[in-house]
Amino acid sequence: MEEPGSIRPGGRTARVRAAVLRAAGDALAEHGFARLDLTDVARRAEVGKTTVYRRWGTVTGLVADLLTDMAEQSLPRARTGSLEGDLRANARLVRRTLTDPRQGALFHAIIAAAACDARTAAALHRFYDTRIREWAPCVEEAIDRGELPKGTDAHEVVRAVSAPLYYRMLASGDPLDEASADRAAKAAVLAARAGAYVKAG
Amino acid sequence: MEEPGSIRPGGRTARVRAAVLRAAGDALAEHGFARLDLTDVARRAEVGKTTVYRRWGTVTGLVADLLTDMAEQSLPRARTGSLEGDLRANARLVRRTLTDPRQGALFHAIIAAAACDARTAAALHRFYDTRIREWAPCVEEAIDRGELPKGTDAHEVVRAVSAPLYYRMLASGDPLDEASADRAAKAAVLAARAGAYVKAG
Repeated sequence: MEEPGSIRPGGRTARVRAAVLRAAGDALAEHGFARLDLTDVARRAEVGKTTVYRRWGTVTGLVADLLTDMAEQSLPRARTGSLEGDLRANARLVRRTLTDPRQGALFHAIIAAAACDARTAAALHRFYDTRIREWAPCVEEAIDRGELPKGTDAHEVVRAVSAPLYYRMLASGDPLDEASADRAAKAAVLAARAGAYVKAG
Repeated sequence: MEEPGSIRPGGRTARVRAAVLRAAGDALAEHGFARLDLTDVARRAEVGKTTVYRRWGTVTGLVADLLTDMAEQSLPRARTGSLEGDLRANARLVRRTLTDPRQGALFHAIIAAAACDARTAAALHRFYDTRIREWAPCVEEAIDRGELPKGTDAHEVVRAVSAPLYYRMLASGDPLDEASADRAAKAAVLAARAGAYVKAG
């Protein structure tokens, strides 16, 4: 299919990585972490087994790279001009992701894996750190506009938007409807305005 | 050890159940759901294998019964006289549970199992439903005292207290210190006071 010489080496490497990470995500969403297998991922991706083993080494290495890619590929923050608008956009994005059949199963699988694997946990925490840093400026700009008390911890406000949605998915099982996303955003804004997230000291 | 006739049949049955559920919790906390095995649980509990298979049948049946027992055994709600005091006591209890080495590992294992097993998920949701109903009166009494708007969804306020703590444990990996528990309670109170959890319609 490819004409020799027509593809830059970086292009091929990037395509192999994309195919392998796509296959890894599919396999995780279908069968979970316990049954993730590099040979199966190579077969799904139509990539040589040796390439996959040489480049990713282990399933935890592969999942860590998948999380890095998910953070890189994920959508930029909203810029609606209002704090509640921005945080509502964030809450709806989180909700769409968690209720999407493939993405939801993928997050479930990775979070389950992180429970018993320290390297996967570290990669998962880096993913959320990246996402929280992407969205924190929504809160920082609201502080600058005087909508929130000075000293408000922007990261904590962003966490507060996602937390009720993850809690529903992972723990209580309550419906993850759009109303729950909008309520999560509204509650975070109201609590932040009232000073709940002002840093101590 | 036991004198024949000195123990009611219910007493022995209850002791066997307690020993088996304790052993199941230990095994889950140590090795996770994937390696849970009824024969191993019977050995740990010093109970006949046949008894365990006859009574619980499958590992998912055993985990469902463990969750029922955890809900029954868990502490009653606080009665501090103030909403924030009550919810802070709840947040600190959740935090203590999730940071306890055995209990935290146990919750991690069950939540991971619920991600790929519908029966475990249903049992887990019943557990949270029981806990949320136990604590909801703290909020209902605050509504009656006029501290919160009429129409506030008490269950949603209780969920809001736990959610940030579970999010830290399962997703973002941020520290689960006592300050995070107190902040979760405070944020829920402030958001509730501002009307974030008033039911629509």
